[in-house]
Amino acid sequence: MNVFYLPEAEVGSVLLSEEESKHCVRVFRMQTGDNVCVTNGNGLLMDAVLVEANPKHCVLNVTSAKRGADFWPYTLHLGIAPTKNIERIEWFLEKVTEIGIDEISLFSSMHSERKIVRHDRLEKIIVSAVKQSIKSRLPKLNELCSFNELVRRDFNGRKYIAWIDETIKDTLVIDYQAGENVLILIGPEGDFSHEEVDLAEKNGFKPISLGSSRLRTETAGIVACNTIQLLNQLK
Amino acid sequence: MNVFYLPEAEVGSVLLSEEESKHCVRVFRMQTGDNVCVTNGNGLLMDAVLVEANPKHCVLNVTSAKRGADFWPYTLHLGIAPTKNIERIEWFLEKVTEIGIDEISLFSSMHSERKIVRHDRLEKIIVSAVKQSIKSRLPKLNELCSFNELVRRDFNGRKYIAWIDETIKDTLVIDYQAGENVLILIGPEGDFSHEEVDLAEKNGFKPISLGSSRLRTETAGIVACNTIQLLNQLK
Repeated sequence: MNVFYLPEAEVGSVLLSEEESKHCVRVFRMQTGDNVCVTNGNGLLMDAVLVEANPKHCVLNVTSAKRGADFWPYTLHLGIAPTKNIERIEWFLEKVTEIGIDEISLFSSMHSERKIVRHDRLEKIIVSAVKQSIKSRLPKLNELCSFNELVRRDFNGRKYIAWIDETIKDTLVIDYQAGENVLILIGPEGDFSHEEVDLAEKNGFKPISLGSSRLRTETAGIVACNTIQLLNQLK
Repeated sequence: MNVFYLPEAEVGSVLLSEEESKHCVRVFRMQTGDNVCVTNGNGLLMDAVLVEANPKHCVLNVTSAKRGADFWPYTLHLGIAPTKNIERIEWFLEKVTEIGIDEISLFSSMHSERKIVRHDRLEKIIVSAVKQSIKSRLPKLNELCSFNELVRRDFNGRKYIAWIDETIKDTLVIDYQAGENVLILIGPEGDFSHEEVDLAEKNGFKPISLGSSRLRTETAGIVACNTIQLLNQLK
């Protein structure tokens, strides 16, 4: 089933964007009368029928809407430093969207090798993963900010900073309790500096390990996301 | 610390391969007297000193060897159908090597969109991930075989087939018990056929779900690997 993203969709007649229309007609080669699925990115999945297969402005008739299955009673928020090779962060965004996440904050820190990202391109990757994995909710991607700014922001829940340091004995998998809102920070290739870990601790973050394996930044992010979702399935 | 892979390494004087020597001198720009780490891929990590920085045949003096931390008291074996886009399987191999895995079997099945892989190229990706994540053990990558052949092979442990079917209520995270040897099969983009699932069941495989999210093949593989490693950390 082909899935389209349309934030303002509701039951009745709706118009796809030019980009989505082109995709519908030119890529999927869909025709009038074909059934499609629409996600509004805000919790609803809808059944629809293509009533006008125009490559610039497709018209759909949305026949029904239901709440998606991708809801959970906690907030899962990851902060991550973009990698030097942007493809690795793009992969991370695709994977955590598939696995299930609420919010992602990109930050630059002392050892970051990349301080600039193309936000619109990263958002497109998330939208594409939402459609591919038929999610009803679009994860929120926050604009790149500084580490210092991010650690000072309010967050109502457990706050962790994943740190590759042999003195860290607490692991996320043991420390996190199912049901808790959680914000986890994942450092850049060169890891966090001691000063950054100190600042995070002063702002209520607990340093934790993700286990004994040495993981790349994007792998650590995926493992952290999957750990929280798994621990909540075990509850 | 730069890491080199040398299967026959032992304490004393050793020679790097031409490829590793080139990497050592041309890419890392290492010089005589520099400290390096060597993995033999068979459980040992070694400290060594570069005694001859020759781009064709570097000589190392291995001063000590110790057992790596990447041992666990169970076997984790994944069977996976290569994806149409080979980069997705390459990415999977890198990630499961980082997270920790014993053995990977590639198989072609009814709905496989790819029936050929370049085995040597995939092995290189695993070696590279072993070095990058400082593993002492090289995961075993089996040659591509047919699904029918793989499900009939002997395996001493729990056998699962991950299947995207709404009738499957058992999940890997609930069913697997820490400490068990495990073999998990992950299907291609078009999933397994009913006939394949039947054949697997006849050969002792239990159909399970990886949760409510619709995951791509490579994501399912990473999630399955991480699930087993996490459940064993919780033990």
